[in-house]
Amino acid sequence: MRAGGRDTHAVWWTDQGVYYLDQRSIPGAVETGVARTVEDVARAIECMAVRGAPLIGVFAAYGLALAARRGEDIEVSFARLLGTRPTAVNLRRGLEAVRAASPDPARMLAAARRFDDAEVAAAEAIGVHGLALIAHGSRILTHCNAGWLAVQDWGTALAPIYRAARAGLAPFVYVSETRPRLQGARLTAWELGQEGIEHVLIADGASAHLIQRGKVDMVLVGADRIAANGDVANKIGTYAKALAALAHDVPFYVAAPLTTIDRATATGAEIPIEERPPEELLTAEGLDEAGAVARVRLAPAGTAALNPAFDVTPHALVTALITEVGVVPATADGIDEAFRRTT
Amino acid sequence: MRAGGRDTHAVWWTDQGVYYLDQRSIPGAVETGVARTVEDVARAIECMAVRGAPLIGVFAAYGLALAARRGEDIEVSFARLLGTRPTAVNLRRGLEAVRAASPDPARMLAAARRFDDAEVAAAEAIGVHGLALIAHGSRILTHCNAGWLAVQDWGTALAPIYRAARAGLAPFVYVSETRPRLQGARLTAWELGQEGIEHVLIADGASAHLIQRGKVDMVLVGADRIAANGDVANKIGTYAKALAALAHDVPFYVAAPLTTIDRATATGAEIPIEERPPEELLTAEGLDEAGAVARVRLAPAGTAALNPAFDVTPHALVTALITEVGVVPATADGIDEAFRRTT
Repeated sequence: MRAGGRDTHAVWWTDQGVYYLDQRSIPGAVETGVARTVEDVARAIECMAVRGAPLIGVFAAYGLALAARRGEDIEVSFARLLGTRPTAVNLRRGLEAVRAASPDPARMLAAARRFDDAEVAAAEAIGVHGLALIAHGSRILTHCNAGWLAVQDWGTALAPIYRAARAGLAPFVYVSETRPRLQGARLTAWELGQEGIEHVLIADGASAHLIQRGKVDMVLVGADRIAANGDVANKIGTYAKALAALAHDVPFYVAAPLTTIDRATATGAEIPIEERPPEELLTAEGLDEAGAVARVRLAPAGTAALNPAFDVTPHALVTALITEVGVVPATADGIDEAFRRTT
Repeated sequence: MRAGGRDTHAVWWTDQGVYYLDQRSIPGAVETGVARTVEDVARAIECMAVRGAPLIGVFAAYGLALAARRGEDIEVSFARLLGTRPTAVNLRRGLEAVRAASPDPARMLAAARRFDDAEVAAAEAIGVHGLALIAHGSRILTHCNAGWLAVQDWGTALAPIYRAARAGLAPFVYVSETRPRLQGARLTAWELGQEGIEHVLIADGASAHLIQRGKVDMVLVGADRIAANGDVANKIGTYAKALAALAHDVPFYVAAPLTTIDRATATGAEIPIEERPPEELLTAEGLDEAGAVARVRLAPAGTAALNPAFDVTPHALVTALITEVGVVPATADGIDEAFRRTT
């Protein structure tokens, strides 16, 4: 996908280190960072310079390949990278794929590249399968950012929308701003703008109102982890949208690669929900009048804040999962069927 | 209630004009403004220096008394003030109460004072009736600001909480930040802090998650207009909280004086929903490092935004209305009963 008119990836390997678009700089600028050590990779994930469940899986995979090349301890590096964020299971998937090829650094790098390529292929296939669900002029509500900044090259929730736009279906996207980190306002709006797809920004609290008033044909979001029974952990605020969709009979789709499905976790209640720093909620970051990144304090000094980063949508509220092997029910049987198609 | 340790009102009449706390300055400062003309009053409402459904009713009432004293045309002034904001019906109530006493300026001022006093008494009674619903240590989720900044002296949703705190019940309040204008983060957190009531700020999108996880005993909000059938218009984001409360069997209470009930509006579908400027959503206002009010731009330049300021919660989702004449069902019968108690 395009950044400033030029095709780019969200993370990529070079012999100098793992490069990434620093997502904190968007939309004010599109800055590139480079992680030269495992610690650089870990910190870029922790501060969300690199974020998005599938993308941090790929980034961490390259990070472990970097550890091998530098002669760093593989198990220590694995643990450091796995500990950066608790909710997305893709992180473990990417790390395990690369560790399985240890100790040879070249084989580990090849494994990371294969993992990356497979994620790109999965995202591309999600776009193809999801396209079948989109009618001409569909009005689609999304949350957070599940585009190519979150998932190499195509995205998950945005992949079918990119496909639909290229197929001339003129999709229209409601972009929920996604407090506190504003991934919707900053990243999804930017991605859609770069691709010329019509969209409008809304407050997170406006979703239920728009669904109630018949303005939304479909809710389409990504996922950070899907349990064995189809429960979906995704960015905080997702569950409220699912409840509104249910109340007004609007389909609620979750787009995710199979690497996001964790069959070792029985239900959503067992998915660990990351608590992020209160500071994220007590402030908002944007651009000042001069175009420089600036942060303003919103609440009175000393205010306490609670900042869970994800919530769990029960599978009964999910119309279907859009995966790289097709659209399947968000149930244990549907998930079993999806994995059977891969064998 | 207290601002900086000193008891104060949110608006008050003097012979020099109608004074008000400029709510845009809170929490960074507590600045006082004065409206010396009807146009000053109208603009203070439009820019939300003065906001909160009951409060703008009182402020507009004094505004019309000001028009009379200054010899401005009453009907023109009435129309100017009524046109400032479309959703809250209290605005019309306050204006009509004062117009009924025209043309004598002294009688009109007396009518405005009576209207103000009645709103204070109603808010105080709401506190008493609502108190009966609060147990020791109740964890209460509120949205926007329905405290004494929104309703003279006591507030609506916060009035029972203030009562509970004074009764030693140690209520705990989840404050939903309320994008885009952040009345929760800026005003409710400030009010509760001034009174020493324990509270924590959350993202609007976190409400459903906290309700699902059993962290919330009660949702308690104010209202901008209540239709004859009990449907409730309130700050955007309220409806999503009501859906989550319903899904998890948590009571959802709406606290409002009878002046907020519009029996001329049959259902919520007929309540006009104000659309506020997109700019409010494209930016966030807070304090910079030096403590000065500053605004940052969140979304890419040129992003379109849709900013409905209110939503409608169907009466079936409202456990009960807390009014100055008692707690009544959110139904046509319940509302009829409430008005019967006033006669």
